[in-house]
Parts: sequence; C-alpha cells; structure tokens
Amino acid sequence: MNETAQLAARIAAANFNDIPPAAVEVSKQALLDFIGVTVAGMEEPLANILRQDASEQGGFPQATVFATNERTSVQQAALINGSAGHAHDYDDVQSAMTGHPTVPVAPAVLALAEQRGHSGADVIKAFSTGVDAECIVARFAGSSHYQQGWHSTGTLGAFGAAAAAAVLLGLDASETARALGIAGTQAAGLKSQFGTMCKPLHAGHAAATGAQAASLAAKGFTSRENILEVEQGFIDTQSDNANSDRFANAIQQPAYVQDILFKYHAACYLTHSAIEATALLCEQNLFDPNQIKQVTVRVDPGHFKVCNIAEPVTGLEAKFSLRFTVAMTLAGVDTSSIDIFTDALTQEPQLVAFRDKVQVVAHDHEQAESIANSETLVTIETNDGQVFSQAFNVAVPMRDLDGQWQKLERKFRALVVPRLGQDRANELIRLCRDLEQLEDLTPLFSALVKH
Amino acid sequence: MNETAQLAARIAAANFNDIPPAAVEVSKQALLDFIGVTVAGMEEPLANILRQDASEQGGFPQATVFATNERTSVQQAALINGSAGHAHDYDDVQSAMTGHPTVPVAPAVLALAEQRGHSGADVIKAFSTGVDAECIVARFAGSSHYQQGWHSTGTLGAFGAAAAAAVLLGLDASETARALGIAGTQAAGLKSQFGTMCKPLHAGHAAATGAQAASLAAKGFTSRENILEVEQGFIDTQSDNANSDRFANAIQQPAYVQDILFKYHAACYLTHSAIEATALLCEQNLFDPNQIKQVTVRVDPGHFKVCNIAEPVTGLEAKFSLRFTVAMTLAGVDTSSIDIFTDALTQEPQLVAFRDKVQVVAHDHEQAESIANSETLVTIETNDGQVFSQAFNVAVPMRDLDGQWQKLERKFRALVVPRLGQDRANELIRLCRDLEQLEDLTPLFSALVKH
Repeated sequence: MNETAQLAARIAAANFNDIPPAAVEVSKQALLDFIGVTVAGMEEPLANILRQDASEQGGFPQATVFATNERTSVQQAALINGSAGHAHDYDDVQSAMTGHPTVPVAPAVLALAEQRGHSGADVIKAFSTGVDAECIVARFAGSSHYQQGWHSTGTLGAFGAAAAAAVLLGLDASETARALGIAGTQAAGLKSQFGTMCKPLHAGHAAATGAQAASLAAKGFTSRENILEVEQGFIDTQSDNANSDRFANAIQQPAYVQDILFKYHAACYLTHSAIEATALLCEQNLFDPNQIKQVTVRVDPGHFKVCNIAEPVTGLEAKFSLRFTVAMTLAGVDTSSIDIFTDALTQEPQLVAFRDKVQVVAHDHEQAESIANSETLVTIETNDGQVFSQAFNVAVPMRDLDGQWQKLERKFRALVVPRLGQDRANELIRLCRDLEQLEDLTPLFSALVKH
Repeated sequence: MNETAQLAARIAAANFNDIPPAAVEVSKQALLDFIGVTVAGMEEPLANILRQDASEQGGFPQATVFATNERTSVQQAALINGSAGHAHDYDDVQSAMTGHPTVPVAPAVLALAEQRGHSGADVIKAFSTGVDAECIVARFAGSSHYQQGWHSTGTLGAFGAAAAAAVLLGLDASETARALGIAGTQAAGLKSQFGTMCKPLHAGHAAATGAQAASLAAKGFTSRENILEVEQGFIDTQSDNANSDRFANAIQQPAYVQDILFKYHAACYLTHSAIEATALLCEQNLFDPNQIKQVTVRVDPGHFKVCNIAEPVTGLEAKFSLRFTVAMTLAGVDTSSIDIFTDALTQEPQLVAFRDKVQVVAHDHEQAESIANSETLVTIETNDGQVFSQAFNVAVPMRDLDGQWQKLERKFRALVVPRLGQDRANELIRLCRDLEQLEDLTPLFSALVKH
C-alpha cells in the first residue's frame, strides 16, 4: 500500500473512542488556546483587511468570525480565523512538523462544526486526526521541506485541515486520499514572507483550502490518490530527504496532539525557556529579588542572533530581548499579555535596573550552533553570595496536564478578558474543558460574538 | 532595481495606447477563444462540482458564471470560469511560459470588469499586461520550473492574474509588488495532477488567487515586495536555472500576447501540425481524396509515445491518434468540435479506410527526441503516382491575423452554437471583435447567460 493510501486509511478510520484520554485533554487545550489567540489577533490590521475582502465577496452566514458580530461562509471563516489566529505568532507549535499544528486545522474544524452542527466529540476527533495527518506528512517529507523555504504551517497545514474536514464530512479512504490530493496541489506558503501579513495568511489559506478540498472530494472531484509519493507530487517537488522508513514509523504513532507545545509568553519563542526558568526560581522564594547581584542566562549561541537585544527601547524590541524578558519575570510583570509590551515599559526604572543585572552567555558545553536547542540555564547570584540555578526547555512537552490547564487558562484570560469580558472568558474555558460532553457547540460560538 | 520592482513598475505603467495594434487584436482573439472553451467546459463534471460548492458557500452576484444563469462573487466566478476554461485543455498555449497564458488571466479580468464596470479597452490592457507578467516571470524562472514538476499555468498564472487585477484596480508599483507577493506565496499546482480535475482547478485557483491578491494589496495587506528574487522566494524555491540576464532581456520585450498559439482541434496538441498540413493539401484541390494510395506523416519521434494510437476504438483514443485525425481531415470531418469525437466515429467505414492508408514515421533528418518540436511533414501519394507534400508547425505564431480570426470564429461557432445558439454566438463574436470600442461590457455578459 502506498503512503497516501495508508494515511487516508488512518484518517478514514478515526474513532473518538480510540483517542487516548491525554490526547483528548490536549486537543481541548489546543482549541481553547486557539480561541484565545484568535480573539486577540482579530484586532490586527491583517484580520480587518481579510474581513473587508470577505464582506465584499459575500457568503452565507455559516460560521462565526471570532470576536466580531459577523458570520460568513465556512471557507471565508476558516481563512479569516486561521489568519487572525496566527497574527501574533502566539499560537502553539510542534517539533514533529516544524510548525504550528493547531492554527491551520482548528479554524476549518470549528467552521464546519458550526455549519453542520457537530458535537464536541466530533470536533476533538477531527482536530486530533488533522494534527496527526500534518505531522505524519512532515515526518515523511523530512527536514528539507522547511529548509528549502516552505512555511510548513501553510503547506503541511493544508493536509491537516483537509484530513480534519474529511473526518467531519465522513469521507471514506478513497475520498480522503482525493481530498489530500486536492489540498496538496494547492498547498503553499513561502518562508520569505515571515515578517509580513502573508505569514498568518498562509495558516488561513491552509484552513480554507483543506475545507474546500474535502468538500470537493465529497462531491466526486478527482485527484491523484497518491499525491505524497507520486512522481512530481508533493514530496518530490518540495523535499530532498523524504524517507519511507520514517513514514512507516510515523504512521504507527498514536495521537501526535499530545506533543503540542504551547506558548505562554507574548515574546520570541527563544526567550520562553529563560522566562520559565526564572519564574521557577522566583516561585520558590529562595531569595529577595532586591538582593540580586547578577543573573546569568546560558543559551545556545543560535539565540544571540534572534533574541538578544541588550537594551530594547520599543515594545517589539523587548519581545526579542532575553535580558528584558528575564527582568520582567523577576519583577512579576505578566509576560503572557500581548498588551503589556509597550515602548514605555522598556523605560520602567525597576525593569531597567533588573535588566542591567542580566548577562547572556553561551552554554559552557560544546554544542553546534542551533536555535533548535532551546534549553536554557538561569543562574542567580545574590549579594550575600548565594547561587541558585534552574534549567528549562520549553521544547519538552508538559506531561502535567492539570498544570498545563492552569497555565493556558491564565494566558487565555490575559488575552480574552480585555476583549470579551470576564464572564465570557469563563464560559469559553468551561465549554472547552467539557467539550467532549457537548452535543452542540452553539453556546461556544454564541460566546464568541462581540456585542 | 530588483526584478520584482521592475516587473511591478512595468505593470503599474500599463497604458492602452502603448499596446501595439497587433497585440490588441490578439488579446481580443484570446478573449473570444477563452469564452468559447469556457462555455463548452462548463458542462463538464468538474465545473458542476465547483458551481455546487460555490452555491453552498454563497456570495454576492457580482460576476457571471458562463453559460449558466448564475452569478457569484468575483473570486468564485474566477475560480469556476478558469477551471471550466481549462476543462478540455482546448485553450491557448504560449511557448514563453510553457503553459496556457489566457486561462488564469482572462477569468480574473472578466469577473472584475463585470463587477466594476470596466470598458473593453481596460479589459484588453489588463489582459495583455497579465500575459506579459506571467511570461516575464517564466523567462526569469527558466525551464527548470516546469521540469521540476510545477504546472506553470497554475503557478505562473497566479502572477499573471494578480498583475491583470492590479491594472484594473489601479494599483501603484509598490502595491503591485505586494499583489505579486501575495499571489506568489499562494501560487500552486503540481504536474502530477495532469489527467485529473485538479489540472483545470489549478487555472481557476490561479485566477481567483490573483483577484484576491490585488484586492488585499489595495487594502494595505503587506507582503515582501521582492517575492521573485528574495532568498527562499518564488524563484529560489521553485527553479534551479533562474537567470537575471534572461529577465533583463524579457522585461524589455513588448506585448507577449502576440505570440499566443491557439488550438483549433479538439485533439492532442501534437496532432495539430499533421491536421493543418493535411488540410492545406486538401484545400488546394490537387487530387481526388478517393484516389489516395498512401499518406505518410513524418513527426519527431517524441510523438510516438503521445499520440500514435494506430487503431483507436474510443473517441478519447481518436484524439490521440495521428492516423485517425489525419483521416478525419481527409474526409472533411470538423476536428474543431469537442462533440464529434465519439466512439462510433472511430468505426465509420470511410474514416477507417482513410486511417488504414496513413503511416506515421520519424523525420528523415537526425534529431533529438523531443515533443517540443511539433513540425510535421505530410506526404500524399495518389494511385496515379503523383506526390504532394506539405509541412506545418503549429508552434509558430500566425502573423495573418485575419486568417486567425477566421479560424477562431469557426472554432468558436463549433463550441458555442450547440450551447447558446447561433444568434448569441454571432453577438459574442461581434462584441469581441469591437471590444476596444465598448464603454461597457454588459451586452457581452448578458449574451453569456443561459436562458
């Protein structure tokens, strides 16, 4: 059996009862987190432009545009919500796909679920299966896909969205293989667009393309049923190191969703390990922050080019400053809020004083220069000569799911309370936590309408 | 100045009065031909599926879906008309882009023109500029783009559609560069999909993407303004033999539209030179077709693998048979009609008799095996020993534009009269011939509604 057929068979066989409980839990967490970042992202200019374009084109009011009072067609809603969800680059990531797993998949799933009245269990099944699909394609394609210049979130995400939509539409294996083909031949997104509105657009495009692909396949639209491995197919044109053994291993793995890594800080991802290590040290009350003599942050040298602005003067620069984000943590400033990173913040005397005590150095051990290694060691020396150290690596998935809920809820409130209010933030958290019990997601979409 | 900026500047400076008269004429011919193939293609299952999907999503009635009584949004109409226009693979081709120049561009232009009320001169200017853009990008990218597996009609076509839409929307050079970036990062289409409905979908996707890209750029959506040449941009990721000198030459050339090659026969393109040579011999009344002893068709050996089915038994096989299409020409059967290639036709005694007199051989001269060389030599020997020869190469653009109008009108009638009737076929021809005089294209779109 060829690879696409194996993947399609796995997708078509998806069953809620086969999903491990931990994967159900992380799926609900990922959906909550997606809603949070999308509510916040909807205020960004790129989301406004996409909404304006969609309102000019028109479409039936099938699916909610989050945090607005608009509903539009499934495909337009997937495009807009997906793009808004990636606007702050604050959505989750996944090592296996070298990209953002949730943002291309969740908007397609939620828009289709709203239109078609699917249950919470259906949503979890489709979402989890979509993440599986994009991760398995990623493992098959290998690292060369991203290295060549493809923005995996857009390209692989189209497969994830198509797989998820195929599950909701109840496609069989052959139809699913065609949906993967239709999505795969329209998959797109160039890494050179990082730093422009096109980066988030890639996520929205993937979501919309996946929803469209499954819909067309369900209606009998034809496509190669072996888009991954066929000559001049997806892998052949966009990877140099595809590997069938790696695929054979990847297709056996259960529930990729369990390895989703969430972002808890509205700053560059490479500052997150330093923030977490610092926060752990502070939480233990081992020292008086006012008695700190020096803080040493040891990172892989790859970080130096990315997030080592020594004396930031703008809010944006602060996000790319290890020294400043560690200072914020020492001062107890909430780094999970996208609203807090202002230019004025960079001049707060207490933060500047902390910042000046932080030095960033390379790890002692010999290591290849690689931003992939995000393990960070923070060492705090106090005025009376005590030394405290803490290592952290945000690239290791958290297995304490209760703890993960707590962190995600804190982030969600920081994003959603200022925009939709305390009551609706609480309601959305409650609905996501009980998602598999919901026969009907109407209350969830109602809570997402901006009054 | 970088390449994308040069191309954007050329697009933004487009002016109807600068277009050579011959290019205006060929633009009108290409638009007529596009309408003809699209009217015919709209009956195909793939077009029905796309219409069904669009009608489910909804959209304002901004643009006509040809040969139906439906109007939908600009982007949906571009998608559907573009896909239908490529359904029979009977639309025009262009050597410079290794693809189909009109089918990604014309549907975007016509949908926007209908919505916005542009004049015929505006339509010609936008169309011609769009074809220029895709050909210039093609020359920059080089042959490797197509060879790697990219379906140029879809990928390069997205640039053509974006350029044409940018002209209609009046974008300046910077906005146009961003439109090219937004289109370029969503450009897609794999050659491995040839033979499936996804091949025509690529054309429609390119048209819709181009229209969307220009609309977003006009609203301030950001993108790299150097998508072609930037590291990990379009060229870097999808070509191995890009060449700046070739670009520098290509950007100087006027009006690529003049080199469009039209298809006049609803059969494999590699049979066209043989049909044309045979028709030329027959038109001269040099011999009685009933006194033919033998016909020899000399082709490049590359044809053998593509269109040399000796004794076809289905209509589809007849399209890929040099012997049978030459027999049809000798018998005066209209090869321009898509409706005539039936299974029954292959068993017509007169055609079978002619077919059996045709032999297909390789050119005498030494030549690399290449399907690119479509020059064909037809030699007819009569029972009384006379010998008549005629060479033809459909890859050479026709400079006799009056003759080209005649051939295109014959093809147009063969496609459109059975579907919209004689009167409307005549009306559409008249409107296209006078296109640059039309202040308003309403009559043209009215004639395309199926009552």
